[in-house]
Amino acid sequence: MIPGPGRFELPEGLVYLDGNSLGALPTGVADRLSQVVREEWGRGLIRSWNDAGWMQLVGRVAARLAPLVGVDPADLHLGDSTTVSLFKTTVAAARLRPGRRVLVLEPTTFPTDGYVTAAVAELLGLELRWCDPADPLASVDEDTALLSLTHVDFRTGALFDLPGITARAQERGALVLWDLCHSAGAVPVDLTAAGADLAVGCTYKYLNGGPGSPAWLWVAPRHQAAARQPISGWMGHATPFAMARDFEPREGVGSFASGTPPVLALSALEASLEAFDGVTVTELRERSLALTERFIELVDEHVGDAVEVVTPREQGRRGSQVSLRHPAAYGVVQALVARDVIGDFRDPDIARFGFAPLYNTLADVETAVERLVLVLEHEEHLDPAYAARNAVT
Amino acid sequence: MIPGPGRFELPEGLVYLDGNSLGALPTGVADRLSQVVREEWGRGLIRSWNDAGWMQLVGRVAARLAPLVGVDPADLHLGDSTTVSLFKTTVAAARLRPGRRVLVLEPTTFPTDGYVTAAVAELLGLELRWCDPADPLASVDEDTALLSLTHVDFRTGALFDLPGITARAQERGALVLWDLCHSAGAVPVDLTAAGADLAVGCTYKYLNGGPGSPAWLWVAPRHQAAARQPISGWMGHATPFAMARDFEPREGVGSFASGTPPVLALSALEASLEAFDGVTVTELRERSLALTERFIELVDEHVGDAVEVVTPREQGRRGSQVSLRHPAAYGVVQALVARDVIGDFRDPDIARFGFAPLYNTLADVETAVERLVLVLEHEEHLDPAYAARNAVT
Repeated sequence: MIPGPGRFELPEGLVYLDGNSLGALPTGVADRLSQVVREEWGRGLIRSWNDAGWMQLVGRVAARLAPLVGVDPADLHLGDSTTVSLFKTTVAAARLRPGRRVLVLEPTTFPTDGYVTAAVAELLGLELRWCDPADPLASVDEDTALLSLTHVDFRTGALFDLPGITARAQERGALVLWDLCHSAGAVPVDLTAAGADLAVGCTYKYLNGGPGSPAWLWVAPRHQAAARQPISGWMGHATPFAMARDFEPREGVGSFASGTPPVLALSALEASLEAFDGVTVTELRERSLALTERFIELVDEHVGDAVEVVTPREQGRRGSQVSLRHPAAYGVVQALVARDVIGDFRDPDIARFGFAPLYNTLADVETAVERLVLVLEHEEHLDPAYAARNAVT
Repeated sequence: MIPGPGRFELPEGLVYLDGNSLGALPTGVADRLSQVVREEWGRGLIRSWNDAGWMQLVGRVAARLAPLVGVDPADLHLGDSTTVSLFKTTVAAARLRPGRRVLVLEPTTFPTDGYVTAAVAELLGLELRWCDPADPLASVDEDTALLSLTHVDFRTGALFDLPGITARAQERGALVLWDLCHSAGAVPVDLTAAGADLAVGCTYKYLNGGPGSPAWLWVAPRHQAAARQPISGWMGHATPFAMARDFEPREGVGSFASGTPPVLALSALEASLEAFDGVTVTELRERSLALTERFIELVDEHVGDAVEVVTPREQGRRGSQVSLRHPAAYGVVQALVARDVIGDFRDPDIARFGFAPLYNTLADVETAVERLVLVLEHEEHLDPAYAARNAVT
């Protein structure tokens, strides 16, 4: 059962609809981190690698994350940024299909995914091919090593058919790398049931790991023996403490490790994931859809002539956010922030509202639309104090 | 002036000589991190990227670090693991010398440095050449793109002549990448004065950033326009919030950024570096040499026939640790830990003692040697409880 916002330290009176950018602070994280710093680091010092189980931290976090994406914890690795994780998995995927020379990419993906794929194509002498977002599979052929897709579009909230696309790309001999940054923790994903190949995700959105928390990556067990990522470090060595001159990879996904794990950040993440205790992915999806559905209904009813809902109305094609198009979207978002409703802006004309099923409520939805109505009625979005565009995350 | 151990939360009665593996906890870090979690993340939420200055965090940490390695903060980047930082700088260096096909590497370097260099050589189709540790320059010729060296040997504590080797390798047209993991914060380094090319270092040893804290990298200003690292992410883009499809690097070392900065870890590091306030690198070096010199003297005097000092006795060739060779070094280290003197073991027969000039004292040195004498006299190192070897960091 969804326990409600009591598991989070949300400021009173704030309607926070930006958990798709930075998740809220779960209760218990601050105390846990304080204990790690004061006791484990401060008093345990170097002994804590063994005594406080820092060497097992990646595995403990993986065990909490695994059910949310339908995998075995043993096949997950955590510790780098999303970008670095994408780089490692993209190189590994290309190497798993050495006879194929094309990496297929979708132009509405998050920019980093494109930059990384282009960088890997250059590094390995491969070809980059942009596909049609409406039909990515049309670009996948016998030359394709990898199709790299983001499951939920960060601008529109549209959802790709992960199992269907995976199966059809695999029929053509390609691998598929899924970016699950906007899925894990809000949209059900069963990578094992889908027979997926590789996946990557951040942990600071719906997983609430904190700003810049470490990303995760997953490699299907059947690929692990042959998969080789290029950033070999001592923590990916079969016997790190032998300090051997030549590299010999650990078995399994452990070979995707590079350096010393980020203990403070992983400890915060471990505590954060306790907010999912006793909650099933089915319950998360039900709550998420109830929230987005109600938001769309109320928007249609009250401001339907002023904004365009760009997120798919079909539930099966929707992630956990709703995006509204408005020519002064930046001003709309800023005026709402001034009224304690936090969403965010995406260039050029999108106001995004993320619905975190663990802590957002139907009351949040209603308050947000009420205040959106007021903003538009009073033309607060045209107020120069809100309408000037600048860099926000 | 060195303010002494009062700037650190050291457990009473413990002699901690492992700051070359994990630095002690500076006072103020726990409170600062608690404030970042509770206030900046918990209450500020997404607004803290601007309001709490998270976007400027890398620059603020760089400003504190820069004087310790003799560089301009604008030329430093922080955020990845040491391994990833080595990978980025090694690829960039090789690309800066496109006509040259050899990466030269020193066999006693930290294993990760070797693994990364070998991985980059494979990726770029280059040749790996192992040099003689006694004369690395003998392997540097007109085919050499890069000489990759660790400034202070992690096993022996021996120090390379950074300015001299840099100058002579550059005369042959090669670049030099320095790994300063065991230098920064204890051994003076002036990268600018040395005319160095590239450098990398961790922050969790003498810089006391906490377990697995983010690494730094430095690229000489003269190389920045042409230097290209391969892990392109949105934070390295000239205009990240334009969310452009194609990558256009930021000017300067900012192009070495990849993903979202690790805010919690960088905040801890920022607070940690306050322990260096008002301390010069010259004072750090004087204190460090006073500690290692006295340790060597006392070891020679009291247990000189039982152990071999493998660290250079010449001060100019010594880092900030002293390593002792003993056939039962593992048992020696474990028996000392049981007597509250913490050093560490390196395969196969090295007991390492790191001297952190910010918090170790001459009293620590004396106590450590007194207890080493007792351990050896009572043959505690042969006690089966201490003598069994297992994985320790």
